[in-house]
Amino acid sequence: MRDVAELAERVAAGERRALARAITLVESRRADHRAAAEALLTALPVPEAVLRVGLSGTPGVGKSTFVESLGLMLTEAGERVAVLAVDPSSARSGGSILGDKTRMERLSRAPGAFIRPSPAVGRLGGVARRTREAAALCAAAGYGTVLIETVGVGQSEVEVGWMVDVFLLLLAPAGGDELQGVKRGIMEIADLVLVNKADGPLAPQAQRTCADYAGALRLLRKRPDDPEGFPKALTVSALEARGLAEAWDEVRRLVAWRRAKGWLASRRAEQARHWFREEVRQAIEDRLAGDDAHADRLTALEAAVAAGELPAARAAAQAVAPLFGD
Amino acid sequence: MRDVAELAERVAAGERRALARAITLVESRRADHRAAAEALLTALPVPEAVLRVGLSGTPGVGKSTFVESLGLMLTEAGERVAVLAVDPSSARSGGSILGDKTRMERLSRAPGAFIRPSPAVGRLGGVARRTREAAALCAAAGYGTVLIETVGVGQSEVEVGWMVDVFLLLLAPAGGDELQGVKRGIMEIADLVLVNKADGPLAPQAQRTCADYAGALRLLRKRPDDPEGFPKALTVSALEARGLAEAWDEVRRLVAWRRAKGWLASRRAEQARHWFREEVRQAIEDRLAGDDAHADRLTALEAAVAAGELPAARAAAQAVAPLFGD
Repeated sequence: MRDVAELAERVAAGERRALARAITLVESRRADHRAAAEALLTALPVPEAVLRVGLSGTPGVGKSTFVESLGLMLTEAGERVAVLAVDPSSARSGGSILGDKTRMERLSRAPGAFIRPSPAVGRLGGVARRTREAAALCAAAGYGTVLIETVGVGQSEVEVGWMVDVFLLLLAPAGGDELQGVKRGIMEIADLVLVNKADGPLAPQAQRTCADYAGALRLLRKRPDDPEGFPKALTVSALEARGLAEAWDEVRRLVAWRRAKGWLASRRAEQARHWFREEVRQAIEDRLAGDDAHADRLTALEAAVAAGELPAARAAAQAVAPLFGD
Repeated sequence: MRDVAELAERVAAGERRALARAITLVESRRADHRAAAEALLTALPVPEAVLRVGLSGTPGVGKSTFVESLGLMLTEAGERVAVLAVDPSSARSGGSILGDKTRMERLSRAPGAFIRPSPAVGRLGGVARRTREAAALCAAAGYGTVLIETVGVGQSEVEVGWMVDVFLLLLAPAGGDELQGVKRGIMEIADLVLVNKADGPLAPQAQRTCADYAGALRLLRKRPDDPEGFPKALTVSALEARGLAEAWDEVRRLVAWRRAKGWLASRRAEQARHWFREEVRQAIEDRLAGDDAHADRLTALEAAVAAGELPAARAAAQAVAPLFGD
């Protein structure tokens, strides 16, 4: 564990290569790596001051351009920004959101920026743990802003909602009848809806879309951790870097309010409890998967149930009893 | 257990009151009732010849009228039909689908019919087990057709899909743009789409809706257990009892084909395995919920995680280790 202590020190000192190595460690499935990763995370508490921001948007809304423009704005102002990507589909496609080398080229060269693509392996639960732990390491390495990007399809944005302080939904200008395309689950976790491409010929359409969403947001149930006027819809142009400063001011204002009212601390504590429960569920499943006697019992009982010889509930009781010493 | 043996005998003899008592037993949460229910189910195997039919449709499509008309048609032909209702929302509303006394009044007086409303308690998992076990008891009591009705909102129809041989989706005549209203998950388990209210002024609209769905069904991926021409869309009028005989012929034809090809047996075996796995998961959760030492450990570790003192994964490993004697 001397290695872990040294790695922790170097991560805490903000060394990029140490951070990259630490993230590789939390991404590994090897048992010894996992033990080292947990020791590392225990040694590196997440600083309270970090701002964790989730960003979701379907392909084509301009997410990369937005992240690059926002990241450059922040790093040029002297801040340190980490960008993590969650792409559950990459497990199948073999690629990853940030795999394309041409993406965020300028931001990746900025000294205050750290960009990490999602590894192209694993089930969603695994992705959630790795992303959450990578975000914690980035925060411990002194990245004051950690941006977690999702593709906005499937379940990933809800999982990301459980690991950030603020959630941004990026949209493209669209007709009113396309409003339904945004899943209700995403609308409910969005703190700020940003209509991108408010530039050139699409500008008027972006304004209309923004007004449509502003109206839709007013129809949603008010959450206790929303200050007056939130959730809010704004237009931005990632391409021309317009509206970004205003949007970011809103993010800061929202987080400052939640921090002052105690909502930030209670939200983070609730998120930690959520992940703990998920980890317990997963740990039990993993343990049972490795129990040969249990696996043999399951196989035999499953066959009896499939053959109609035993009702499922009785067979399950018989399968589980030996686990608890009955 | 002498009571159980006697009850099993009376259920097998087709006594309605015994069947009602047996279903009350599987619905109970008392430990001794559960043990008796499992003994009862073990003593009463499900006859292979039973036909288990799922029926889903949103409120207003005429589900009750359809079930009543279909049930009367079958019972008048000398068949015995059981109707079970699944209504997960009833836990909140305090009501139940069949709670309304005026519903299916004629069918409820038919000698060959057995109607059982969903009890207004419990979580969805519990509803699934109760419904599945009640259906098994109805089959054992000699009801050759067991109809399981759901309201078609939420997750319940997918659960019902896991406990029936054939799934019917009942729809009302609608405009083409309302096609999207049917959840993709339901379309994927439907074997027969029935457009109801094909009577009076709505008849032409029902025909158009039926054609729309026939087209949509052709776009869906062909399943291996579908004979040529299935899934299929038909029009019916539950009110005028028209189209029901034709629809039921299609159900019989489909099931006969699946039985002959071995799909019926393999589907039932797969369903049994599915429920066994669900029951194992639930049994483990129930056991752990009753383990005071485990509960105390969870509380302490959860507090440490919420306070940021321990990462979730490490805390989970500590929580789970004692369960496995580490």
